[in-house]
Amino acid sequence: MPLPDLSRCAIHTMTNKPWSLRECIDAYTRLGIGGISVWRNVLEPLGLPEAAKLLRDSGLRIPALVRGGFFVAPDPAARQAALDVNRRCIEEAHAIGAEMVVLVVGAAPGTPLPDARQQVAEGIAACLPDAQATGVKLAIEPLHPMYAADRSCINRATDARLICEQLKHPNVGIAFDVYHTWWDADLEQELRLAGQQNTLFAFHVCDWRTNTRDFLNDRGLMGDGCIDIPTIRTWAESAGFNGMNEVEIFSTDYWQMDQQTYLQKIRHAYLTRT
Amino acid sequence: MPLPDLSRCAIHTMTNKPWSLRECIDAYTRLGIGGISVWRNVLEPLGLPEAAKLLRDSGLRIPALVRGGFFVAPDPAARQAALDVNRRCIEEAHAIGAEMVVLVVGAAPGTPLPDARQQVAEGIAACLPDAQATGVKLAIEPLHPMYAADRSCINRATDARLICEQLKHPNVGIAFDVYHTWWDADLEQELRLAGQQNTLFAFHVCDWRTNTRDFLNDRGLMGDGCIDIPTIRTWAESAGFNGMNEVEIFSTDYWQMDQQTYLQKIRHAYLTRT
Repeated sequence: MPLPDLSRCAIHTMTNKPWSLRECIDAYTRLGIGGISVWRNVLEPLGLPEAAKLLRDSGLRIPALVRGGFFVAPDPAARQAALDVNRRCIEEAHAIGAEMVVLVVGAAPGTPLPDARQQVAEGIAACLPDAQATGVKLAIEPLHPMYAADRSCINRATDARLICEQLKHPNVGIAFDVYHTWWDADLEQELRLAGQQNTLFAFHVCDWRTNTRDFLNDRGLMGDGCIDIPTIRTWAESAGFNGMNEVEIFSTDYWQMDQQTYLQKIRHAYLTRT
Repeated sequence: MPLPDLSRCAIHTMTNKPWSLRECIDAYTRLGIGGISVWRNVLEPLGLPEAAKLLRDSGLRIPALVRGGFFVAPDPAARQAALDVNRRCIEEAHAIGAEMVVLVVGAAPGTPLPDARQQVAEGIAACLPDAQATGVKLAIEPLHPMYAADRSCINRATDARLICEQLKHPNVGIAFDVYHTWWDADLEQELRLAGQQNTLFAFHVCDWRTNTRDFLNDRGLMGDGCIDIPTIRTWAESAGFNGMNEVEIFSTDYWQMDQQTYLQKIRHAYLTRT
């Protein structure tokens, strides 16, 4: 399989949570990282125009604004409010030149999963005019089944594909994250189908620590855990994916480390374990 | 849907972890619980003959001995050792009159999941002569994907069905646990298929707490969480399941409670939230 290439590496700002957007941009460009995916929390302190200018001047590719979604709610007013947030996300993505908005679609404990999935399809459909008008893509991210109670009713690539097939719109696709999908016996097939259907919008990497201690913030750096990332990356590339490999790691341990040291580790793990 | 019936309720001894086998038997029979699934750790202090006599005299139905499995290992000698343990499980199940051995099939961080699944199929196949000779059934329990690194390479009912279809043996089937499977969009269909294929061996209940704090020991009592158990039970019964509804809850919180008080809560939750 081809070696990973730093110019195709993008890092999510949340991976270096202690850093501001400016610090992320400076550090990534100095190290030859090709891209940055921007979480909304780092836009706020700067304001959108200033952040957009910084990003534009950086020359970094910006695969994604992270994150929209959370379409599911028992209350119609809450669902309407979610649409407003998502339209704002699309605007922001457009303003900073991000190619897509990543959607963590939501779930609600009292809402049966089939109903929740329908609310997601309706929510995305309602945002499509804005997506189309701005050219911003919407990437449904299947989340690990351990998040099915309250974060995402889309827990397999298959669930995401069914929504893509229902909406059949060139701006709707899937963000595959190895952390959420590595265990799924259908993953290779779903990557192939996504390639065929032009819905393979994003590929996220990190690792699953064998003794994971926390549901949210104990992800591993590539090589720390048990995911065979090179094989999955090869499946994605065989399916035609030639976008960025996005490093997205939530880790209390790594956030406590000196972030320059950590970034060197990320670079090494990206080049040797991805 | 028909109300749940205490005579069809079985409780896993691990649910009342602080109790000995004798305490479990006494408490369950006094409350009119119909059955008991026996974890191996409660057999040890009594010895098998004494435990078998206690169980026989109790009149309780014994759906399962828990648990065999762990067939996956990089080292062939370790895989051979696992077969010996599983044959011993089958013997013990036969001795205490348990209908099946529940299999937590195993996984190993360095072993790719497809290879691991093949090792599981081979391991079960090697135990089938013993299962057939004793009449003990082997129930593959799909485990939640959060256990895919080191506990189970079978993470969906679909994965289990593929092994059942490969082995095509009347003693091999599936233990469906709502905790592990509730999020799966294919669950209803897999229950129906299991009914058709005579592989719907077991149905386990508990709940998924929305803010689950621990990967192993934070399960909820039925009604504590977000699983729509009555609907899933109806799917199982529509598929022809008429066996025991087994209550299997690992919970540090509930283990710290007075176990008689807890058992009353289990009874109430079983009758009203299952």
